[in-house]
Amino acid sequence: MVYIDQTLLPGRYDVMRCTTVEDLARAIRRLEIRGAPALGIAGAMGVALAAARSAETDPGRFQAEIRRAAGLLRGTRPTAVNLAWGIDRVARKVAMAASVAEAKALAVAEANAVAEEDERTCRRLGNFGEELFPTTCTALTHCNAGALACRCWGTALGVIRSAVATGKDVRVISCETRPLNQGSRLTCWELARDGIDVTLIPDSSAAYLMRKGEIDLVIVGADRITKDAVFNKIGTYMHAVAAHHHGIPFYVAAPLSTFDLSRRETDIVIEERDRAELAGCGDRQLAPDDVKVLNYAFDATPLDLVDAIITEIGVLRPPYDKSFRLVSEPAESREI
Amino acid sequence: MVYIDQTLLPGRYDVMRCTTVEDLARAIRRLEIRGAPALGIAGAMGVALAAARSAETDPGRFQAEIRRAAGLLRGTRPTAVNLAWGIDRVARKVAMAASVAEAKALAVAEANAVAEEDERTCRRLGNFGEELFPTTCTALTHCNAGALACRCWGTALGVIRSAVATGKDVRVISCETRPLNQGSRLTCWELARDGIDVTLIPDSSAAYLMRKGEIDLVIVGADRITKDAVFNKIGTYMHAVAAHHHGIPFYVAAPLSTFDLSRRETDIVIEERDRAELAGCGDRQLAPDDVKVLNYAFDATPLDLVDAIITEIGVLRPPYDKSFRLVSEPAESREI
Repeated sequence: MVYIDQTLLPGRYDVMRCTTVEDLARAIRRLEIRGAPALGIAGAMGVALAAARSAETDPGRFQAEIRRAAGLLRGTRPTAVNLAWGIDRVARKVAMAASVAEAKALAVAEANAVAEEDERTCRRLGNFGEELFPTTCTALTHCNAGALACRCWGTALGVIRSAVATGKDVRVISCETRPLNQGSRLTCWELARDGIDVTLIPDSSAAYLMRKGEIDLVIVGADRITKDAVFNKIGTYMHAVAAHHHGIPFYVAAPLSTFDLSRRETDIVIEERDRAELAGCGDRQLAPDDVKVLNYAFDATPLDLVDAIITEIGVLRPPYDKSFRLVSEPAESREI
Repeated sequence: MVYIDQTLLPGRYDVMRCTTVEDLARAIRRLEIRGAPALGIAGAMGVALAAARSAETDPGRFQAEIRRAAGLLRGTRPTAVNLAWGIDRVARKVAMAASVAEAKALAVAEANAVAEEDERTCRRLGNFGEELFPTTCTALTHCNAGALACRCWGTALGVIRSAVATGKDVRVISCETRPLNQGSRLTCWELARDGIDVTLIPDSSAAYLMRKGEIDLVIVGADRITKDAVFNKIGTYMHAVAAHHHGIPFYVAAPLSTFDLSRRETDIVIEERDRAELAGCGDRQLAPDDVKVLNYAFDATPLDLVDAIITEIGVLRPPYDKSFRLVSEPAESREI
C-alpha cells in the first residue's frame, strides 16, 4: 500500500510504500500515517495486505496469521477507534471465507471498499455540516482533520471545504497543535494549497481570540466518540471549555466509524507519548535533560460542551442519548 | 552590565556583558533578557549605563542623551510596564540632578537600588503568597515568573519556593509556553536545579489535567496590571478560563511595579511578534512558507477570573476596586 509520510510535511511530500504488516505498524506508530479515518483505511489495508501476501495454504494457519496481523495493527494506537473498526471490517470477511483464496479476494475487496466509502462519507458529512456555517465566518480548528487524515476532503476540514465550495466566505484559524504540530504542518499546508484563507496561531491564544470576538465557531474531528465524551487531539477540551465560556458553538465532525457507543469515557485509555516530543524540536533542545514530561496524545470532551456532531447521516444534536439512537439503527430506517 | 542570555537555556548558561544602550536594547528585543521584574531592572540599569558612559559635559546635551537612551529602551517591548517603571525611576533621578557628575552618581545608585529591592520584594511577596498554598498541592504555572525573570527567587515561582521553604509538599506542572518555550526551557530548568518537583506539559493539556482533578491551583506572574485586567504571557487567559470552569483558584503574583492603575485593558497595546517564532523551531520547518501567522506575545485576563493578586504588600482580593486603593497609598499608611 502507498501513503504520504505525514511526518515530513510541509518540508517534503514523499509517497511511501509498505509491503509488510510490520512496516505498516511502524509507520502508524511513528505517525507517518495518522488521522482517525486514515487509520481506519490503514487498518483495513493492513489486514488485506497480510492476507494477500500470505504464503500459507492451510486455512487454519492462514486464519491464525491474519489474527496475529490484526492484533499487531490494533496495538499500535489505543485511542482512535477507527483503526480497530477498519481492521475488524476486513478481518470479519477473512474469518467468514470458505477458502484461503476466497479470503484473499474478499479482504482486498473490503479494504478497497473502506477506502472508497471514506471519500463519499466525507463529502456527505461536509454537505450536512456546511449548513451550520454562517455566510461569512471565522472557524477555529485544532490538529488536522483534513484530507491528510482521511482519503481526501476531510471531516472538520471537509466541512470547511464544503462551505467554501458553496460560496461561503470562511476564514480559518489553525492552532499549531503541540507537540507534533499537525495544525501548522498539515492543516495550514493543505488549506493553503486549496487557496482557503488560513492563519496559524499558538494553541494557547485560541481563548484570547474568542475573547476578542474573532472566532465564530470551533470545528474539530474526533478519534472516538463514546456515549458521554468526544476523544480527540490534546487541546480539544480546552477549546470546548473556552468556546462554552464565550458562547461560541463547538462542533465535532466525525464519520459513524468513530462512534463507540457501548463505552464510556472512563473505559478508554488515553495514549501517552514519548517525552522526546516535548523535550526538543529539530536540533533545538527545549527542556533540561531528565525533566519529567506528561504527554497525553488525546483528551476527552464531555458531550455537554458539544453543540453538534456532524456525521454522514446528518447533524446530531443534544440530547445525545436520543440522537445517538440513529447511529445504531440500520441505514434504511434512519430519519434525521 | 551583565546578564544571563535566556535564549540559550537550557542548553547553555552564558553570562553576557553589554556596554552600550544599543546592545541592551537589542538583547531585550531578542528576549535574551525577559520577565517583567528583570525588564524593570534592565531598564534602570540601561539608563544608568547611558549616564555613566556618557562623554557629554554640557548638562543640556547630557540630559538630551539620557532622554534618547530612555526612549530607545522604552520602545523595545510595549506591553510589560516594569520596563518603563525601571527606566523612569532612574531617568527621574538624572533629571533632578544639579550637575552631570551628580546625575551619573544618582543614576548608578538608583539602578543598584532597583536591583536590590527586587530580591526583597520577591521574598516578601513569596511569604504572603505561600499562605494560599495547601500543605500538599499541585500548582500549575505558565511561562517563567521565576528567578530568571527577576534578580532571584521570582514572583510566581518565588511563591512556590517560599511554600517549599516552609516545608509544604508542592508539585509543579509547567506549561511549555509556546512559541518560545519559556516554561520548558526556563521554568523546568530553574525548578529542577532547586530540586523542586516539576513536570512539563504542552500548554493545551492544562485544562484536561484540571478536569482530571490533578491541579489544585494556578499561579502566574504578570507583565502589567491595569484597573480591569492582568496582562501576561499568551495562554494565561486560557488557563484562567479553565480554572474558573473547574472551580480552581487562579492566582497572580506581581510586585507593585507591575501595576498601571490609571489605564484600562483597551488602552494597552499587545505586542505581536515575528511569524518565524511559529513557522519553525531549530532546524525544523513547522509551517509552509508564506502561511499567515498571528503571534500575540501576551493576553489580557479580566479581573473577575482572578482569585487573588499576591504583592509585596500583601494579598489583594476582590473587590479589586477597593483593594487596589492600597497600591496607590504611601507605604506607611497601608493596612492589608
